[in-house]
Amino acid sequence: MLHPELISMENEVFRVYLGWTAVLVIKIFAMSILTGLTRFATATFANPEDLLSPKLKVKFDDPNVERVRRAHRNDLENIVPFLIIGLLYTLTNPSAFLAINLFRAVGIARIVHTLVYAVVVIPQPARALSFFVAAGATVYMAFQVMVTAAF
Amino acid sequence: MLHPELISMENEVFRVYLGWTAVLVIKIFAMSILTGLTRFATATFANPEDLLSPKLKVKFDDPNVERVRRAHRNDLENIVPFLIIGLLYTLTNPSAFLAINLFRAVGIARIVHTLVYAVVVIPQPARALSFFVAAGATVYMAFQVMVTAAF
Amino acid sequence: MLHPELISMENEVFRVYLGWTAVLVIKIFAMSILTGLTRFATATFANPEDLLSPKLKVKFDDPNVERVRRAHRNDLENIVPFLIIGLLYTLTNPSAFLAINLFRAVGIARIVHTLVYAVVVIPQPARALSFFVAAGATVYMAFQVMVTAAF
Repeated sequence: MLHPELISMENEVFRVYLGWTAVLVIKIFAMSILTGLTRFATATFANPEDLLSPKLKVKFDDPNVERVRRAHRNDLENIVPFLIIGLLYTLTNPSAFLAINLFRAVGIARIVHTLVYAVVVIPQPARALSFFVAAGATVYMAFQVMVTAAF
Repeated sequence: MLHPELISMENEVFRVYLGWTAVLVIKIFAMSILTGLTRFATATFANPEDLLSPKLKVKFDDPNVERVRRAHRNDLENIVPFLIIGLLYTLTNPSAFLAINLFRAVGIARIVHTLVYAVVVIPQPARALSFFVAAGATVYMAFQVMVTAAF
Repeated sequence: MLHPELISMENEVFRVYLGWTAVLVIKIFAMSILTGLTRFATATFANPEDLLSPKLKVKFDDPNVERVRRAHRNDLENIVPFLIIGLLYTLTNPSAFLAINLFRAVGIARIVHTLVYAVVVIPQPARALSFFVAAGATVYMAFQVMVTAAF
């Protein structure tokens, strides 16, 4: 069963979904800021009109900038599908305890993923683990949505 | 007219939307797995901390890895906008027959797109056709949403 | 408070959200078309099966194609999070005047961003300004959603 009335602040699952969604959206925008700061720190610009000095040339292979851009792209691949499936999963009226902890797992794992990938660079398997925690929780929610749709 | 009560399992259009959304979200995550498998198969890693042996170097130009990454990015460009506009289109109370077949068209076309792009590599116009079927269906839904919003 | 009944054509905020969402989704697909046209105009193809003539080779560094692809990726980083947070922000029952103008700001700024980035190429700070207007409005909405979730 699906219930539109689950879209309500009375529903703690929806409230937790909202909170983590807002945090993760702000986190995605923080990646844009981090990319910009890393571009300025390394004088790496992708467009001629961005060059701060006529002595600079466009550059696409700075390892620090590219690392931040990979982390950013990884967010788009993982966080964005979660934002949609998390909302639909909330509508399937899941166990509050399970749903809230799945949302927390995704939110915390994706923040850890960026920290170990693009901020402090911690050896593997730190990044792989944080990736799989968030991906596993999101795929589980998608399966639950699929089961709800099928029956 | 929009009706929040259309967000219900009583509404077959919403149920079909849910089903294809879940399938396509799992499909997006499958691209991450396929990228990882292709990286291991070709020993192509983008980060020093990922290198399995001190003899390896980071590498960004393996054609197989890059092909999977292009297919993955193409999913983000096409599937993600569908997931949002498909939900809003459902809320416009469309003809069930049309809506259900549009969702099927997007879901099947996007799976075919990946198969012919990154799994078996079939000559054009296979990929172009699957791209345009899904894109055309999604843009049609967006136009219907725009018309509903305007009147 | 959140109200599922805000998902209604009676709610002008939701109607404006719907309109801009539809426009921005169509705009994202227009980037695919623009990429394709620029690929044909410059004979720059990323896959062997796309080559129009046996004399051509795959090519990844055409500056015009890469510029359009950067603008497209920037849309995924910025428009897609807005589409989700804009819907949730609508559910927080915001001031209609403020919400409608925030949606307009995002919609217009993102169209201007593409025009100055990939269509006519206007010197900075045109692109930076359009980026920050849309990003600022979206992050503001995310903060409002977070505050609503917390209290």
